[in-house]
Amino acid sequence: MKQTAGRPLKVALLGYGVVGSQVIRLMREQAADLAARIGAPLELAGVAVRRPGRVRSVEVDPSLITTDAEALVTREDVDIVVEVIGGIEPARSLILAAMNSGKSVVTANKALLAEDGATIHAAARDNTVDLYFEAAVAGAIPLIRPMRESLAGDHVHRVLGIVNGTTNYILDKMDSSGASFSEALEEAQALGYAEADPTADVEGFDAAAKAAILAGIAFHSRVTAADVHREGITEITAADVAGAKEMGYVIKLLAICARSEDGRSFGVRVHPAMIPRTHPLAGVREAYNAVFVEAESAGRLMFYGAGAGGAPTASAVLGDIVAVARNRLAGTCGPEESTYADLTVHPMGETVTRYHVSLDVADKPGVLARVAEMFAKQDVSIQTVRQEGLGADAQLVLVTHRASDAALSATIEGLRELDIVRDVVSVMRVEGEDAS
Amino acid sequence: MKQTAGRPLKVALLGYGVVGSQVIRLMREQAADLAARIGAPLELAGVAVRRPGRVRSVEVDPSLITTDAEALVTREDVDIVVEVIGGIEPARSLILAAMNSGKSVVTANKALLAEDGATIHAAARDNTVDLYFEAAVAGAIPLIRPMRESLAGDHVHRVLGIVNGTTNYILDKMDSSGASFSEALEEAQALGYAEADPTADVEGFDAAAKAAILAGIAFHSRVTAADVHREGITEITAADVAGAKEMGYVIKLLAICARSEDGRSFGVRVHPAMIPRTHPLAGVREAYNAVFVEAESAGRLMFYGAGAGGAPTASAVLGDIVAVARNRLAGTCGPEESTYADLTVHPMGETVTRYHVSLDVADKPGVLARVAEMFAKQDVSIQTVRQEGLGADAQLVLVTHRASDAALSATIEGLRELDIVRDVVSVMRVEGEDAS
Repeated sequence: MKQTAGRPLKVALLGYGVVGSQVIRLMREQAADLAARIGAPLELAGVAVRRPGRVRSVEVDPSLITTDAEALVTREDVDIVVEVIGGIEPARSLILAAMNSGKSVVTANKALLAEDGATIHAAARDNTVDLYFEAAVAGAIPLIRPMRESLAGDHVHRVLGIVNGTTNYILDKMDSSGASFSEALEEAQALGYAEADPTADVEGFDAAAKAAILAGIAFHSRVTAADVHREGITEITAADVAGAKEMGYVIKLLAICARSEDGRSFGVRVHPAMIPRTHPLAGVREAYNAVFVEAESAGRLMFYGAGAGGAPTASAVLGDIVAVARNRLAGTCGPEESTYADLTVHPMGETVTRYHVSLDVADKPGVLARVAEMFAKQDVSIQTVRQEGLGADAQLVLVTHRASDAALSATIEGLRELDIVRDVVSVMRVEGEDAS
Repeated sequence: MKQTAGRPLKVALLGYGVVGSQVIRLMREQAADLAARIGAPLELAGVAVRRPGRVRSVEVDPSLITTDAEALVTREDVDIVVEVIGGIEPARSLILAAMNSGKSVVTANKALLAEDGATIHAAARDNTVDLYFEAAVAGAIPLIRPMRESLAGDHVHRVLGIVNGTTNYILDKMDSSGASFSEALEEAQALGYAEADPTADVEGFDAAAKAAILAGIAFHSRVTAADVHREGITEITAADVAGAKEMGYVIKLLAICARSEDGRSFGVRVHPAMIPRTHPLAGVREAYNAVFVEAESAGRLMFYGAGAGGAPTASAVLGDIVAVARNRLAGTCGPEESTYADLTVHPMGETVTRYHVSLDVADKPGVLARVAEMFAKQDVSIQTVRQEGLGADAQLVLVTHRASDAALSATIEGLRELDIVRDVVSVMRVEGEDAS
């Protein structure tokens, strides 16, 4: 069925930053290998930039540079458009223009896919072109393809991932050195792991976009960033980290996509959580990413690697370019968006997990009885209680059995109103205990 | 380009054992999901067995059972043939007959692919049909697809894998409990992790077949099981394991595919090796598998999961069935075998790594000087030496810098001839130290 094609496949690149430069470099350095693997050479048709005068780490023939991205993506000779600009606009308009002109698209744009994936996927389907986006989640780690294709015959129950390298670096530093959040953030910024404005990372926006994409694929349903419950790591203290460590846990920012017990809905959330040090995700250090998938038949799988960076992201982009190029030569397309299951995203209150709660309590008899009563009132069952410190400095540390987020929230509200509770020091979810 | 197809895709199954039964079960239980994902329903066309009367864990309509596998795979209405018999014949003849009749094939047969992959791949190409084999290596772990497709734009330097669950279970037991090899093997047999005749696993044949397949894909070259240097784990002693533990290492049976430094050849080997406990592979416990891939741009990736078992293997087979079915509906094929690079497999003697050597030596002055001289004679540089025990029980434990296998072998031969060396107690390669 394959056409033998000697003619080069022309690639238009949108964006000439860290990732774009590496894509150009790899297309050049590995040209012979790529041609052999595809069955036809790749040719860079043009690079759309906003600021043409800027100095780049990888040079290209200046005649290829253009500021007219719209003209580039609709140019008749272009086969494949690679979008590494990021953000919603103009990326979305350019991708749509490319698809409407019959081009296949490779993108690393998690924000756009999480906000308006439906529009982009529909345009790909309507125009019978490819949309590949391996680089949008967890950088170099092959994850989208395995989840869309290798697990196509399986039933995914849960995805538990460390999908943001910046926050993993910060939490890992806090864990290994006892640093505070702001000290660890400063170090991450000095090393280039965190941006000057770290909001997108430390508040969990980046991870939430990736969680939306993963949940959509895992559960064959449409999910947007707005469906994701999101909490960042800015309020994690050195004391939280040390307390977790003492109990054999480590705090990670997790993206969790989990089916409800009846299988008819699922939840998507990003928040810091305590996981046992024996869990495979606990060993993910520095800025690495890893995604743990629990499927009905396959069991427990984990995918580990570099979640960001120019070269790793470019590797994922190149893999997609090869796939799209092969498909074009064969006159076919890869898998379309799969949303047939159309499951509901349940509200955060219905999420069921365990909780670790630290309370600063008055030094009086009967305190534990009154605290325990408040948990019982909401049907939240306590697994362990332990008193830390003595006298006026005493803290009560409780770990619950599995309870709904709504019940736990109501419990915490009730505790705050008790005169004997001076402060709710921390509330942290406990995850991954059934999978060591 | 896709044809809309209501007609069911018919699947012929060769083999009705543990994996075959699970494939049948999943095709039945997940029929609606599979149909939605493929765009057409799957239908079981028949199951070829050797012994039709046998009781199976999953039942099928008796009219589907046949002992005439040849007739089944060439039947006009069959679209996809799934081979889970294993072994060379009759699997090879049946796969070839199926392909020559225009059927696409999904197989879990590592032995056949490692022995005569060339014939099978050529038949797929000549007949323009698919050959998918995700289940042949590391069971449920998506590995073949990521390596063939996701990494198609990258340059793989090295693959380091735990690809045999039986031996990992045995070595893990020896490490965690101090058991001897035979005690751990017995336990593995009692739990069903090892077969009554454990040769294929403990002598490394199973891992070697997988290593050949992985090396071929990683280096775009043709590799057979005969190219793989193979050593098993039967001679590993409790003392070896304890000694490794003391030094912060763990012994694993590794499949290693590594490019030479000049990139023009590569080595493929399966042998026990010491790896640092900080290496991601060190944490792979029990019968789990994991494969660590080092690529030029992607950096370090790891894929982890269940390497065997009926349901996990069936998950990989089902994923392949979905892919093949989609390809058939689209009138196309997935990626062909890629051997364009045609690199040479270098002999084991050219492999460069580090070595851990334990010697039982005479209790005399000047022993270390004479031992060191023997290493120097072969240009093998020593990193650390340590004496264990005292007097007549003294052992000399040496760790070398990187040296060729040929030089190390010559050194060991020389040491055996020294009168002051009573015994070469153990020689073990040390791997994974540059990747913690």
